[in-house]
Amino acid sequence: MDVMEAIKGRRSIRSYKPDPVEDEKLNQIFEAVRWAPSWANTQCWEFIVVKDSETKKRLSETLTKNNPATNAVLSAPIVLVACAKKGVSGYKRGEPVTSKGDWYMFDMGLAIQNLTLAAHSLGLGTVNIGAFNAEKVAEILGVPENVEVVELIPLGYPEKIPNPPPRKDIKEFVFYEKYGNK
Amino acid sequence: MDVMEAIKGRRSIRSYKPDPVEDEKLNQIFEAVRWAPSWANTQCWEFIVVKDSETKKRLSETLTKNNPATNAVLSAPIVLVACAKKGVSGYKRGEPVTSKGDWYMFDMGLAIQNLTLAAHSLGLGTVNIGAFNAEKVAEILGVPENVEVVELIPLGYPEKIPNPPPRKDIKEFVFYEKYGNK
Repeated sequence: MDVMEAIKGRRSIRSYKPDPVEDEKLNQIFEAVRWAPSWANTQCWEFIVVKDSETKKRLSETLTKNNPATNAVLSAPIVLVACAKKGVSGYKRGEPVTSKGDWYMFDMGLAIQNLTLAAHSLGLGTVNIGAFNAEKVAEILGVPENVEVVELIPLGYPEKIPNPPPRKDIKEFVFYEKYGNK
Repeated sequence: MDVMEAIKGRRSIRSYKPDPVEDEKLNQIFEAVRWAPSWANTQCWEFIVVKDSETKKRLSETLTKNNPATNAVLSAPIVLVACAKKGVSGYKRGEPVTSKGDWYMFDMGLAIQNLTLAAHSLGLGTVNIGAFNAEKVAEILGVPENVEVVELIPLGYPEKIPNPPPRKDIKEFVFYEKYGNK
């Protein structure tokens, strides 16, 4: 699939078919993660592949109340739990390089967008879930203290593809030479 | 260009030809940003397009010492300054939803990976620069307090395409059902 077609055609999928995801496709999705850029090539990402129904049920209970993605965690054949090693991205010799401290959220964004686009190009849907209790998920999956749980990402064949929510026009977020100069 | 080809073929470009970037291509790159997913569709991203040589010189002086991307800021025909509105992504009614607080770094990662892949598919190079003084850049470009400068992204036609740095194998960063379970 063409890059721009994938970028524009991707939707957040919250309704999945029960059909399993082929191992070969899952492998291609992680291959897309592998090739993401990262701070000084530190590659802080780690993923847990969850297929067990009981675990998915426990994960679904960590979401914020009335989160529209709750059913996606229960019904998708796979839930990917995206984690990040802390103190790596944005650091040099153990010290943060910038006033922003740890850059793991930025690098996870880069990697997860690769994952999302690769999945979409293979006919698979995903949705980025950030509104959940990361500490509880860490407990459920035995994630150690130096690793942060960042996202839950249901993965599977879409049952329903929603219409895209409206986007800002380019002229609303692009300036020239100085901030605010349109 | 095919999605997986773009993901695997993209390199961090630090050496640029002087040739200008066509307006139509710049527009397509921002179109790719537009379609990125974001926290509750908040779209916190803002970009400043810098072409002025004197401004690029001042931006290049904000990079960390011996940053290998310094010359890229000076020589690329365009430097994109990626900014984020604070207190939007990860918030609901003015309050942070998760223990991570502001999610702008994550959403900027998603948007910038779209930007990077779109640029690559158009024959253009970019490099993600995070190691610089964001406060100084904000001063130079008049970025207000509620907006954070996240990255400097040189953009132009590559003069030299480097070999990719080594990547972790998938089995080094993927676990099954529980953390650490390979």
